[in-house]
Amino acid sequence: MPLQSLIDDALAETPPGRVVWLALSGGLDSTLLLALAAEACRRHPRSLHALHVHHGLQAAADGFELHCRRLCSRLGVPLFVERVAVDPGTGQGLEGAAREARYAAFARRVLPGETLWLAQHRDDQAETFLLAALRGSGVTGLAAMPARRIWRDSRVERPLLAHSRAALEAEAGRRGLAWVEDPSNRDQALDRNFLRRAVLPLLASRWPHAGEALSRSAALAGEAEGLLGELAELDLARLGGDPTGLPAAGLSALTPARQRLLVRHACGRLGLPTPPARRLETLLAQLGARQGARQGARTRVAWPGAEARVWRGHLHLLAPPMELPTGWRATWDGRMPLATPLGECRLRLVAEGEPAVGTLTVVPRRGGERLMLAGRGSRDLKRLLQEADVPPWVRDRLLVVWQGERVVALLDPQASRWLACAEGWRALSPSR
Amino acid sequence: MPLQSLIDDALAETPPGRVVWLALSGGLDSTLLLALAAEACRRHPRSLHALHVHHGLQAAADGFELHCRRLCSRLGVPLFVERVAVDPGTGQGLEGAAREARYAAFARRVLPGETLWLAQHRDDQAETFLLAALRGSGVTGLAAMPARRIWRDSRVERPLLAHSRAALEAEAGRRGLAWVEDPSNRDQALDRNFLRRAVLPLLASRWPHAGEALSRSAALAGEAEGLLGELAELDLARLGGDPTGLPAAGLSALTPARQRLLVRHACGRLGLPTPPARRLETLLAQLGARQGARQGARTRVAWPGAEARVWRGHLHLLAPPMELPTGWRATWDGRMPLATPLGECRLRLVAEGEPAVGTLTVVPRRGGERLMLAGRGSRDLKRLLQEADVPPWVRDRLLVVWQGERVVALLDPQASRWLACAEGWRALSPSR
Repeated sequence: MPLQSLIDDALAETPPGRVVWLALSGGLDSTLLLALAAEACRRHPRSLHALHVHHGLQAAADGFELHCRRLCSRLGVPLFVERVAVDPGTGQGLEGAAREARYAAFARRVLPGETLWLAQHRDDQAETFLLAALRGSGVTGLAAMPARRIWRDSRVERPLLAHSRAALEAEAGRRGLAWVEDPSNRDQALDRNFLRRAVLPLLASRWPHAGEALSRSAALAGEAEGLLGELAELDLARLGGDPTGLPAAGLSALTPARQRLLVRHACGRLGLPTPPARRLETLLAQLGARQGARQGARTRVAWPGAEARVWRGHLHLLAPPMELPTGWRATWDGRMPLATPLGECRLRLVAEGEPAVGTLTVVPRRGGERLMLAGRGSRDLKRLLQEADVPPWVRDRLLVVWQGERVVALLDPQASRWLACAEGWRALSPSR
Repeated sequence: MPLQSLIDDALAETPPGRVVWLALSGGLDSTLLLALAAEACRRHPRSLHALHVHHGLQAAADGFELHCRRLCSRLGVPLFVERVAVDPGTGQGLEGAAREARYAAFARRVLPGETLWLAQHRDDQAETFLLAALRGSGVTGLAAMPARRIWRDSRVERPLLAHSRAALEAEAGRRGLAWVEDPSNRDQALDRNFLRRAVLPLLASRWPHAGEALSRSAALAGEAEGLLGELAELDLARLGGDPTGLPAAGLSALTPARQRLLVRHACGRLGLPTPPARRLETLLAQLGARQGARQGARTRVAWPGAEARVWRGHLHLLAPPMELPTGWRATWDGRMPLATPLGECRLRLVAEGEPAVGTLTVVPRRGGERLMLAGRGSRDLKRLLQEADVPPWVRDRLLVVWQGERVVALLDPQASRWLACAEGWRALSPSR
C-alpha cells in the first residue's frame, strides 16, 4: 500500500473531534510523517498538532526547532514546542534520560482520548529488538515497540513501523522534502548508533531482509507477550482475582514458570516494579517451603521499589513500607487535613455532642496503648489489630490520636483510613 | 561450579543402568565433554558410549574419525561410527541436510530410555538465537536449543549449554587435550560461520557479555514457549480436548492470537506441519465468517503437508487426503492383507455359513452403489454415509467390495476400517 494511503487510513481510524499529536523532531521520519498526515487531513479532517521536544542537549537543537517552525508554517499545522532538561545522571544513560524527558513532555500536552503519533520505522524496530536481546531480555523486551498502545488513556501509535528507512527516504525524496540530520545520530558512543552504523549493515550484507526479519520476530514476541498476559489473567482469576493477595497454596500449585509469570503480572497490575529473576526465585522457593508451615509464619523478600510478604497463607505484593520517623508528632484539631510523613490524610474526628475537640495529639503507635470501645470496655490496641486481621506491615506504621491522656482513635496514614475509634467519638472519612 | 562437578551431577541424574550416548565430532566441545564424562563415570558408573557420525562431506572426515578412535581408546570408551550420506539437494541447505542425517544416525543407535549428550555451548546457543531472529522467527525459534528435551522416548541433553566456548577451551588446555579443527568451521559461506566469525566478535567488541545475554534471551523465549503450550492446552481442554475436531464457535470466541496459538498447537499434537501465517489468517477469517452459516457449509484451507476443513461446526486438521488412482482395482479372497494405494488393510470378509468367498473385486466408490442391509433392504451407499456422519473427505476415498454384480462391503483404506457390510456377510477387523 502506498504510504499516503496508509496514513490516510490510520488518520481515519483516530477518533473524530480529538487532537492527533505528532512528535516532530525535524528528522527524516517525522518530517515525512507530518507531510503525509497534513495531506491526509484534507480527506479526514482532524486537528493535527505537531509537538517538538527541545532537548537542549546539543548546539544544533535550535536549528531543529527552526526547521520545525518553517515546516509547520508551510503545512499549516500548529506547532507546540516543549523545552525539557535531560538529567544524564539518573543511572539510565543519556538515551534513557532523554526518552523519559520526552515522555514527560508528551504527558503535559496529550490529553486523555487524544492520539500521539510517533515516526519510528522498521529499522528502528530491528535495532530495539537487538538492543533488548543484547540485554538478555525476555519476550516483553524483545517485543520492542508496539505499533499501537494505550498510554495514560491516550492512544500512542507508530504508523510507519512496518516500513524501512530506505522506503521513507525514497518517499521524502519524491516529495522534495528537506529535513535536518541530528549530528548525534553519527555518535557511535551511543549503543543504538553502533548497531545502526556497524552491526545492521553487516547483517544486511549477508541477509538483505535482516531488518524485516528482526522486526517480524519483535512482532511475534509482542504477540507472545499478549498471550502470556491472557494466561496470567486466567490464573489470577482462578486464584481469586486479587493481585494484592495471591493465595500461596494455589500459587505454589502452578508450574514454576507460571508462578513467575503470575507474580510479574500481578506486580504490573499494581504498578510495582517486577522482581529481578534471582529475587523471584528466592521468593517462590520460600513460598513453596512455607506450605504446611504455621499460618502466622512471615516471609519477606524485597527488591528496588517493591517487596513481597507471605502472611496468613497469602502472598502480598507491596510498595516498600514507609517508616514513621521516630519522635514525629503533630497536633490536630480533628478537622483540617492532617499532614503526616506518609502522606496527607483527609479524615475528620468528632467528639459526639461537642462542637470542637480542642487540641489532639497524633503520635506513632508505640505498643501498650489501650482504647475504650463502646460496649466492650478498655481494649489493648494490639489485640484489636490482631482481631481485625490487620497485616503486620500495616500495624508497624499506625498513628494514635490522643486527647490528653486518653487514646481516642487509631489511623493508617499511608492508606488514609481509620482503624478504630473510642466510645463517644466518630471517625469520618471523606465520601468519594 | 567447576565443569567437572557439573558433568558429575549431570551424569548422576541420568537413569542408572541405561546407556549415555555422547555425540563425538572430535572438535573441542565434544572432545572435552567426553573427557569430563569419562572421568565422571568413575564416580557415577554408567555405560558411556561415544557415537561418531561420519558425514563424508570433506576430505578431512577420515582424520576426524581417527582422532575419535584414538581418544576413545585412551579413555576406555566404546566408540560407534555411523556413516551417513548427506543429500544437499533437499531444499533445506547443506547444514540442514547434515543435521537431518545426524539425527537419523542418532535414531538408529539411541534406544528409548537412553540418554544422548550433545556438546553445544553458550556461543552456539547465541548463534542459533540470532539465526532464528534473522529468519523472523517467533518464540519457538528464538528459544534456540533446549538444555534438555524428550526425543523419541530418549533424553537429549546439552550439559555444556551454559558455558562459553572460551571457558571450554581453557579447560581443555588445562587438561592437555588435543582436538581436531573442522576446516568447514572457517567457511563463511555457511551462515553460522559468518555469525561466529564476523557478527558475534563485532557485538562482543561493544557488549562483552553479548553471548551470555543472547543465550539468556533464548532461555526466556523457551520459557515463554512452554507457557504458551500450557495456555493452548487449557484452551484445548475447554473446547473438548480433541485436537482433530475443534468446535468452530468456541474457537472463534477466543482472541485472534489465541486462535492462532491453538490451531498451531493442535497441529503439533497431531504431528502435522503448522500452517504459514497467511494460510492461518485465511483459515481463521473463513472460520469467523462461517459463524451462523448453515451447518453443512464446507471450508477447506490447505498448506504443505496438511489441510483444515470446517464441517458440521468443527475445524478438522488433517494430513492431505490421498487420492485413489482412477481405474485402480484389485481382486481379493477376503482373507489375505489387501494392498491398496492408500495403505495395506489387514481386514477380513466372511460370507456367513460358507468356507470361502471366491474372488471378490475391490474398486473405488463411484456413486450410485446400493447395499442390501440386514432387516432394512436395499440402501443407497450415499445415504448410509450421510446417516453415519462420515465426513466428506472420507467419503471421497472409499473402496467398494463386489461379489459379481453385488456390493458386499464398504471400507476406508486410509483408516483401514469397515464402514458397512451386506446381509449374510461379516466384516472383521484384527483385534488390537
